[in-house]
Amino acid sequence: MTNTTPQTDQPTIAEAPITEDEIFRAHEGGKLSVELGAPIDTQRDLSIAYTPGVAQVSRAIAKECDLVDKYTWTDRLVAVVSDGTAVLGLGDIGPRASLPVMEGKSALFRTFAGLNSIPLVLDTTDPDEIVETLIRLRPSFGAVNLEDISAPRCFEIERRVIEALDCPVMHDDQHGTAIVVLAALKGALTHLDKDIAGLKVVVSGAGAAGVACSKILQAAGVPDIIILDSKGIIGEHLDDLNEFKADLASWSNPRGLSGGAAQALAGADVFLGVSAGTVPEEAIASMNDDAIVFALSNPDPEIHPEVAARHAAVVATGRSDFPNQINNVLAFPGVFAGALDADARRITEGMKLAAADAIFGVVGDDLAADHIVPSALDPRVAPAVAEAVADAARAEGVTR
Amino acid sequence: MTNTTPQTDQPTIAEAPITEDEIFRAHEGGKLSVELGAPIDTQRDLSIAYTPGVAQVSRAIAKECDLVDKYTWTDRLVAVVSDGTAVLGLGDIGPRASLPVMEGKSALFRTFAGLNSIPLVLDTTDPDEIVETLIRLRPSFGAVNLEDISAPRCFEIERRVIEALDCPVMHDDQHGTAIVVLAALKGALTHLDKDIAGLKVVVSGAGAAGVACSKILQAAGVPDIIILDSKGIIGEHLDDLNEFKADLASWSNPRGLSGGAAQALAGADVFLGVSAGTVPEEAIASMNDDAIVFALSNPDPEIHPEVAARHAAVVATGRSDFPNQINNVLAFPGVFAGALDADARRITEGMKLAAADAIFGVVGDDLAADHIVPSALDPRVAPAVAEAVADAARAEGVTR
Repeated sequence: MTNTTPQTDQPTIAEAPITEDEIFRAHEGGKLSVELGAPIDTQRDLSIAYTPGVAQVSRAIAKECDLVDKYTWTDRLVAVVSDGTAVLGLGDIGPRASLPVMEGKSALFRTFAGLNSIPLVLDTTDPDEIVETLIRLRPSFGAVNLEDISAPRCFEIERRVIEALDCPVMHDDQHGTAIVVLAALKGALTHLDKDIAGLKVVVSGAGAAGVACSKILQAAGVPDIIILDSKGIIGEHLDDLNEFKADLASWSNPRGLSGGAAQALAGADVFLGVSAGTVPEEAIASMNDDAIVFALSNPDPEIHPEVAARHAAVVATGRSDFPNQINNVLAFPGVFAGALDADARRITEGMKLAAADAIFGVVGDDLAADHIVPSALDPRVAPAVAEAVADAARAEGVTR
Repeated sequence: MTNTTPQTDQPTIAEAPITEDEIFRAHEGGKLSVELGAPIDTQRDLSIAYTPGVAQVSRAIAKECDLVDKYTWTDRLVAVVSDGTAVLGLGDIGPRASLPVMEGKSALFRTFAGLNSIPLVLDTTDPDEIVETLIRLRPSFGAVNLEDISAPRCFEIERRVIEALDCPVMHDDQHGTAIVVLAALKGALTHLDKDIAGLKVVVSGAGAAGVACSKILQAAGVPDIIILDSKGIIGEHLDDLNEFKADLASWSNPRGLSGGAAQALAGADVFLGVSAGTVPEEAIASMNDDAIVFALSNPDPEIHPEVAARHAAVVATGRSDFPNQINNVLAFPGVFAGALDADARRITEGMKLAAADAIFGVVGDDLAADHIVPSALDPRVAPAVAEAVADAARAEGVTR
């Protein structure tokens, strides 16, 4: 079906636009604070929380190391770690300028999963130094959310931090996005009564999100994935690929296509945009009936959702002011909460797939073309994801 | 005057003893949490605190780096950093076992100075690695409280971190203790109508606290300081001194004494114990009239305060269950708050002396033999210290 009627009657959120002044005021002094579980008002409080009482707790942990999980905050503390090299769509703006984003991330961990979280931004972009620093800091936290680290460095850094640390580690720009994309795809396919098994998917963008989305879609059973970078279709016909793109070429593009978006999208079922680029309306129009378009680039989607809707049956973006917002916040709070709840030593592919299923599960009977994923604020999501992830961790035996 | 009447009528705090169970229960899940300045309840909140709104703040900081102080929490965030090598009187129990102490410290920063604070415990004891790690983490905090790092490593580490970072850095075991000792000494001398200029002081302990106390007393004008380590009086008659003790020998022990506590204390005015050792009653009895005894070892003072009081006019300990508790918490919250308020690049000797004066100033008209320092819980102390420290920083021109 080619839907040529612009869906201008789709609901959009109508309220006073957010002003710059409002944003800056909300950031004055930062967005986080460290507070006490119990106040220190009396000499007795002081003697319990600090000397001499605290010595008993320290002595107990010194004797039996695992007690650190019970008697300190680290067991439910996520370090949000960035070097500021790929911040939102702003690029390499450095660790200090990345801090408001990391504070926001920590705020979301608290809001949606009740986890403690501290931003740790690093004045180095060297993978060796980043890995080494996190190894040295290991006793300070329970899990690591890597954030806004540029590709392809992010792949190596994540792999090495996972290998070095015995705790949950996830680069959210990769896997948080991938989990929510898979959940949204399940929603769209269910709504359209289509099966994942015959699907042709085009992924535009071979950065952190593009690579992780392609991999999770493959793991979920999508048989035909084509990945586009700024030069066009990635495939084995190219001979100047770096190691990461050579890996993508080895298992994607099964029909051996070459060219650009036009060649890739003709007859495709799904367009997934995770680049800062654009896609022409004609290319979207050349997709199969009941096409699915996820144009996730922020703030400017690869194609305006109302234009995409002329040709696609389901359209999603990364923006909150259009229906079907694909937002990482649906995944990461629950993923880390579940991994920490289960005392998982790492976050596996199975745990990520379970998270996607859980997000899709929350949509339930509300599933519709303009409601393929839950709202980013739906309080049911994080607990459902946490439970599914913890169950998967236990089933896979990756718990301590 | 030799007071031979035991001062058993001194007020002591009488309440039910703190049980082990009570202490462990108070530590379950840790003592800290990270909370939000404003809740994220609506899509609008989310769009302000996170994407897309936060991008404007990040972009502003990327353009003008100093805005990071205004729009993130780091400007008033103290990292409490330890390698767990000298934790309370427990020694080298490692970073994990040190965490309850560091959480307690962070709790005190919040309680007394309204500062944010995060414990960062390091899985390395190598000075090079500790300094390097803090340099890499520099964008994550506004100040560094070094804590429970063993001597003599702590001297080198503190010096190098101060040199490397453009922010307030203080090893509290050294300088927090020294500041409060000086404040208490001022209180005792004022009460006894004695002058600092003619004073003979014996410091027992040449670790972090002993060295820093000796130095601040010298800076405050004490002309005759003798320092004891476990082998006795440190002096130029010894030829096997490490570089730190050789430095002490070069300016202390002006009368060239040798021997132990007995030789040092005969005719002394002040005994300051900051070791885990003991001092015999006879040695205390040999001190001058109106002797001052600060027996600060915890939990067991070098001499029981009631025994010391037989021979001394003023007695202080580190314990909350005797009068005159010399507790670092009187110093560090205000010192860091004042340094951060003034945007100080470092903490100078002048700022430490100003902090001691401010603590002494709070005692005011309540000065008495059993009240030479304010209570550890006195809410007037930290603001007074902060103001004095900030003024000193501005006067010395070490602000940004």
